[in-house]
Amino acid sequence: MGITERRERERDQTRAKIMNAARELFAREGYDTVSMRKIAEAIEYSPTAIYVHFKDKEALFGELCRQDFGRLSDAFKELARIEDPVERIRGLGRNYVRFAIQYPNHYRLMFMTSHVHSATDEIPCGKGNPDEDGYAFLRTAVAEAIAQHRFGREFENAELATQTLWAMAHGIASLQITKGNDPWVEWRPIDERAIVGLDAILRGMLVDTTKPRPARKMRKAGAR
Amino acid sequence: MGITERRERERDQTRAKIMNAARELFAREGYDTVSMRKIAEAIEYSPTAIYVHFKDKEALFGELCRQDFGRLSDAFKELARIEDPVERIRGLGRNYVRFAIQYPNHYRLMFMTSHVHSATDEIPCGKGNPDEDGYAFLRTAVAEAIAQHRFGREFENAELATQTLWAMAHGIASLQITKGNDPWVEWRPIDERAIVGLDAILRGMLVDTTKPRPARKMRKAGAR
Repeated sequence: MGITERRERERDQTRAKIMNAARELFAREGYDTVSMRKIAEAIEYSPTAIYVHFKDKEALFGELCRQDFGRLSDAFKELARIEDPVERIRGLGRNYVRFAIQYPNHYRLMFMTSHVHSATDEIPCGKGNPDEDGYAFLRTAVAEAIAQHRFGREFENAELATQTLWAMAHGIASLQITKGNDPWVEWRPIDERAIVGLDAILRGMLVDTTKPRPARKMRKAGAR
Repeated sequence: MGITERRERERDQTRAKIMNAARELFAREGYDTVSMRKIAEAIEYSPTAIYVHFKDKEALFGELCRQDFGRLSDAFKELARIEDPVERIRGLGRNYVRFAIQYPNHYRLMFMTSHVHSATDEIPCGKGNPDEDGYAFLRTAVAEAIAQHRFGREFENAELATQTLWAMAHGIASLQITKGNDPWVEWRPIDERAIVGLDAILRGMLVDTTKPRPARKMRKAGAR
């Protein structure tokens, strides 16, 4: 390995170390209270050493955002080929919860802390690039399902339907992250809660196609 | 007003001031990073002045917990007289979300930060006293609904049903608190999201009584 390659690898490792420390601090203490100095202290670097890699806190935060939302959208990509929009939505929900459980610090920073957008108006975290925008990905599937008349009347608004599905997945994920280790709740296993919960919200939103709809048939027969 | 009364009122006001500052700090920065000194600084008191009212951080935190969960359970009490358990559950969900929107700092401390129970094993926040335990209140209504065969088969487990309902209400409330001001989501009004979302999860959990269940009838007829 040449000197340039080694230097590049070391540079990447340092950046990753800084970013991991920053993510944990931001997720735990919020954007405002964490300074570049604090991040440096956490990994026993000098503040100057950090500024070599990121010009300021906003730039570091923006890079974290970009990377973490990118990782979530990677977890969605495999689902793009599911043709049935309702089954795609089901898969999105499951992968979303799985992502949250696997990367709780990422998830806390992305979806459980405020400050995010006020801090980086120029780099709106998770929005802009459609490949990184999980909300847009879900909304597209929802719009397809609506076009196929799969949802009940109150969910003909795509924003409302998307936000309802997101709330369910977020509720399952975030309760697990903050309260999953609390001994005073007899928690059912998280996998069970995710599957059963996401199935239930979908069932509650879908038009019930198993109903024989006798009323409508009778009306038709009478009209003839 | 006598001297004793005035002193007592002043004492109560000081306590309230300390508690409000502590709640905001705990909610924003987590239990671990907040010290008694930090709380004192926030209201420009000396640390000594705070220790007159609370013997340590744990005692202060425990008192916050007791008070805030008490306030939530007050928001539930008016629903105890609703006889139908499913309607009681619907009301609990709505009042829960309303509580979160009205008292976001309380809600963040109660349901959106970890540390809580590790910090106060002796005062398990929200548990113990049934009057202050919202989970138990919801679970009781759920158990009644199960006993009346109102839920589908997968929700015959009262913990799973309670946790699914809680996840939905928590998802609606906590997304609003952390992301409700983000301009990049075209949010539907929170009241609409709460009502429609809670109705949808309930519908997805309930046995569909509007179905004529022709299969079962046929089987009965055949057995005769």
